[in-house]
Amino acid sequence: MNFLEERIVKDGVVKEGNVLKVDSFLNHQMDIKLLDQIGAEFRRRFAGKPINKILTIEASGIGIACVAARHFDVPVVFAKKSQSINLDGDMYVAEVESFTHKCKNHVIVAQKFLTPEDHVLIIDDFLANGCALQGLIQIVQLSGATVEGIGIAIEKGFQSGGRIIRNLGFQLESLAIVDGMDASAGKIWFRGQDPEDSGEVKRTEDEICRSSTLD
Amino acid sequence: MNFLEERIVKDGVVKEGNVLKVDSFLNHQMDIKLLDQIGAEFRRRFAGKPINKILTIEASGIGIACVAARHFDVPVVFAKKSQSINLDGDMYVAEVESFTHKCKNHVIVAQKFLTPEDHVLIIDDFLANGCALQGLIQIVQLSGATVEGIGIAIEKGFQSGGRIIRNLGFQLESLAIVDGMDASAGKIWFRGQDPEDSGEVKRTEDEICRSSTLD
Repeated sequence: MNFLEERIVKDGVVKEGNVLKVDSFLNHQMDIKLLDQIGAEFRRRFAGKPINKILTIEASGIGIACVAARHFDVPVVFAKKSQSINLDGDMYVAEVESFTHKCKNHVIVAQKFLTPEDHVLIIDDFLANGCALQGLIQIVQLSGATVEGIGIAIEKGFQSGGRIIRNLGFQLESLAIVDGMDASAGKIWFRGQDPEDSGEVKRTEDEICRSSTLD
Repeated sequence: MNFLEERIVKDGVVKEGNVLKVDSFLNHQMDIKLLDQIGAEFRRRFAGKPINKILTIEASGIGIACVAARHFDVPVVFAKKSQSINLDGDMYVAEVESFTHKCKNHVIVAQKFLTPEDHVLIIDDFLANGCALQGLIQIVQLSGATVEGIGIAIEKGFQSGGRIIRNLGFQLESLAIVDGMDASAGKIWFRGQDPEDSGEVKRTEDEICRSSTLD
């Protein structure tokens, strides 16, 4: 297991319905040293790519993106999400349909912050169905910029988002790919790992899902 | 002028209605080196305080808080804002009324991330009427934790938020306090500066206000 998988086993909580809670270190309370390790690992995996901008989406992607950006020495742009469009000015807007929440959302970035000269690394904390990520890719392509790669902290490998994005030819690097969870047994296993060797995690039935509202 | 005031003069845009747009470097696109300078300056101003946690609010406070946290070597917790409360689990909730938007919002933090042992530095990008900030202070006090200080990047000194918070006895440090703007002349001046010596900034009438939706 790598450092992020180890941390998920140590401090993650699994819950019925394939929910993985990592809010004690990743997306409500944030361990900045862990975020820095994640940023360094993204730098290693995207070495040699001419990245000049990082794009993420509010809210929980912002922390990872900003700490990672130090390793790339580039600015961060974060997309806004909104159920309604009520913005003046020149914006790129992608309409995305949420698989989980059965509603439509908009992903929005000001046009002046993405140009055809930009080489973009997209960063987010979670990838499940990939709805938010599809909106971000759509916006980069609308702007004429280039998607150089996609860095994700935790991918739910048993949902379709990652496979679709890889099938489209993007370099998608997820630092921890969860291939299965068993809430009743408190177990979790990662890609490349035999479920028999799965980690024992805490489990709960009474707390909230902290996954992306766009997934 | 300090580094942030200089940057506001260089890249900020003033707009009719006392709107200051800093979305090219602070709250849509983010200059990570600038955020790092802001973090270092907060560290200097709150030296000696026993800070063990930084609290901010989604979305645009998260970047500053995460980069600043490296200078304090502490975790960051970000509060969520929601017009409706629809969360399971044990949450601290503050109801705050928006002065600008004439609506009520909720500021929400999971109880397990704030305890009476915590010594909290609150960080946000903007302070105008202080609605979001009042909600954050309320939550820290609900939890029994201590507010050690409040670090703000840009304060609109001609609105009431800063004065109220200082009158309550909190150490509030705003790195740039804007005392006035003149959109028609494209001028801005900061606290301690004669309006006659004001900086010349860009002005626009056709773009969006990027101030906090809670103000």
